[in-house]
Amino acid sequence: MITLASDFGTPYPAAMKGVLLSRSDARLVDIGHEFPRQNVTATAFWLTQVLPEFPPAVHLVVVDPGVGTDRAALAVRAGEHVLVGPDNGVLCPPARALAASSDADTDIETYEIAVDDPRSSTFHGRDVFAPAAAAVHEIGLDRLSSLETLSPVNDFVDLEFPSPEIGDTEATGEVLVVDDFGNAITNVPGEVLEGRESVRINGEKRPVVPSYAHAVEGTPIVTIGSHGNVECAVNRGRGDEAFGLAVGDVVRIRPL
Amino acid sequence: MITLASDFGTPYPAAMKGVLLSRSDARLVDIGHEFPRQNVTATAFWLTQVLPEFPPAVHLVVVDPGVGTDRAALAVRAGEHVLVGPDNGVLCPPARALAASSDADTDIETYEIAVDDPRSSTFHGRDVFAPAAAAVHEIGLDRLSSLETLSPVNDFVDLEFPSPEIGDTEATGEVLVVDDFGNAITNVPGEVLEGRESVRINGEKRPVVPSYAHAVEGTPIVTIGSHGNVECAVNRGRGDEAFGLAVGDVVRIRPL
Amino acid sequence: MITLASDFGTPYPAAMKGVLLSRSDARLVDIGHEFPRQNVTATAFWLTQVLPEFPPAVHLVVVDPGVGTDRAALAVRAGEHVLVGPDNGVLCPPARALAASSDADTDIETYEIAVDDPRSSTFHGRDVFAPAAAAVHEIGLDRLSSLETLSPVNDFVDLEFPSPEIGDTEATGEVLVVDDFGNAITNVPGEVLEGRESVRINGEKRPVVPSYAHAVEGTPIVTIGSHGNVECAVNRGRGDEAFGLAVGDVVRIRPL
Repeated sequence: MITLASDFGTPYPAAMKGVLLSRSDARLVDIGHEFPRQNVTATAFWLTQVLPEFPPAVHLVVVDPGVGTDRAALAVRAGEHVLVGPDNGVLCPPARALAASSDADTDIETYEIAVDDPRSSTFHGRDVFAPAAAAVHEIGLDRLSSLETLSPVNDFVDLEFPSPEIGDTEATGEVLVVDDFGNAITNVPGEVLEGRESVRINGEKRPVVPSYAHAVEGTPIVTIGSHGNVECAVNRGRGDEAFGLAVGDVVRIRPL
Repeated sequence: MITLASDFGTPYPAAMKGVLLSRSDARLVDIGHEFPRQNVTATAFWLTQVLPEFPPAVHLVVVDPGVGTDRAALAVRAGEHVLVGPDNGVLCPPARALAASSDADTDIETYEIAVDDPRSSTFHGRDVFAPAAAAVHEIGLDRLSSLETLSPVNDFVDLEFPSPEIGDTEATGEVLVVDDFGNAITNVPGEVLEGRESVRINGEKRPVVPSYAHAVEGTPIVTIGSHGNVECAVNRGRGDEAFGLAVGDVVRIRPL
Repeated sequence: MITLASDFGTPYPAAMKGVLLSRSDARLVDIGHEFPRQNVTATAFWLTQVLPEFPPAVHLVVVDPGVGTDRAALAVRAGEHVLVGPDNGVLCPPARALAASSDADTDIETYEIAVDDPRSSTFHGRDVFAPAAAAVHEIGLDRLSSLETLSPVNDFVDLEFPSPEIGDTEATGEVLVVDDFGNAITNVPGEVLEGRESVRINGEKRPVVPSYAHAVEGTPIVTIGSHGNVECAVNRGRGDEAFGLAVGDVVRIRPL
């Protein structure tokens, strides 16, 4: 199985599918192609959420603002999964999440992919990463290190999500992503909400509820989202607008 | 075969796919993940149109504004199909359409799915409905009633589309959905247009044509859409804008 | 394998998938359903880019502003591929690209599909083209001419992309498409940029770089895109906005 994730919209993902299907009989599964455009951190966050749900697979991930520069191409084995994509950090958090969720094997091995004069300088999804993902799929996990185009590396671009500050009277974090419903998802662990009926978010008192529809329609609420973090939302509305929050904005949570 | 329909955008559908693929070898088919957000009626309308085209399948349908409340989770057998989703009415009209189009079996059986402490309160697509859809697929249609997590129910939330009023000199209905071309699709059956060259729509005289390009580019027209209902459109333009119509708006049709 | 490309958005593609799956066990692959709406030329351009990446397949292409008029329905064999769609030119450039990229067979054969009283006048994707694509897939390439619903034709709507004018001191072309990143892709071959460090685009001096990130963030740049043509872009921004360019706009390139 090969999954595909990108910020490409239409129709560039189809070119990657064509390349994969020309070189492999793997089942293809779209993760999505509307990841926040050129946003490595947001894409990495979403992939840490969704990839651990999958059975062992090769995950082709192309959010690649540095395409055509000398940034490397990587294949990262994490548990029974392999991620293939650019060396800009986007693969690292999902690799850790995949390794952590593996029963069998929690190792992470990182390889650089040899890139030999690709057809274009602007579309390595088609010209570098898709061929590499197909090759990785065809050779199989056990024989990965025998693939000639892969060399183990220790030096690559890592990415950590920003850490929240959890104090006695206040937690401070930021908005990591806004989903398509407008829910503003922070990096603050949901535990700070436990046992609370309401909190102050950037000074405004907001009810803490188990899910959106526990509040009257249109009410701004705070909840623990499916990711386990604090989420600012509105029942049947957009949390980002009601709270005035965008990706990267600071969120101060003050238990009442 | 398991189909997936939701209002999730990117990337939540991928989490459901991961859950399904971890529990089943079923073929997965995306119906779409941009259904009108949190709009149960519009989604139900679209599903009555598209699901009867499918061979027997399990249809995972998640438009679920009540997630995390005490609304039940349902599996509905309709002919040789099973729909899995929330008890908010979204499954009912497509279930009737599937049963009506079945050659073999026009029965509808409704089951409540036992929900046992899901991982999250906000993402039952991943935590409740996808596992249930996989279980239903794996046990198969004939043994559905033997699945321990299913109990037959007679009491569930039903949904009927609003009925038009068809009088001698006027038909009154409303806009059910607007498609991505801007075509405003009403609940008025297309028969009211038969034999007419033009009608008044909310007072304005409009030509009745067999299809969009039978009128000069930019002309607002009325036609019988692929669903059999009256549709307000513009050749190479947006009907919703030209007619000033949005979902739920009243449409008065007066044959001339 | 059957691929699907359309300008349908959600949920009409699902109806086509249902029809295909009811008539064939073919693997289905989405090329995309957000092609520029009712834009035959732009869709044809994108398909010339992506379809040649695919192994032999039937390609169902429905961008069909003339649906329900007397425009014909076509099946076009190009090398080992068959394209199925409306006779409005959208199939012609990708057919030439597929034939040109075929190792075995560079012939193009065009057939008219007999259309017998379709269910609707407004959705031939469901009622005409999907059934034809399934029939073509099931009979197979070698026996295509034995399909009773196909008749060879020589007379059909052709489509050529507009030609650029390449002079000694200036190249003049136009914007063919704008991709989802905002890159404005022209019909001017990339060769006019070779060996240049900068050019004037409609009078403004712009750097020529191998890829987006070779310029400081926010800089308007000119590059040779993955399609081989001149592309006007911005590193981490939208080229269409920075250059003031939309589809169809004239682009004058003056080497410096």
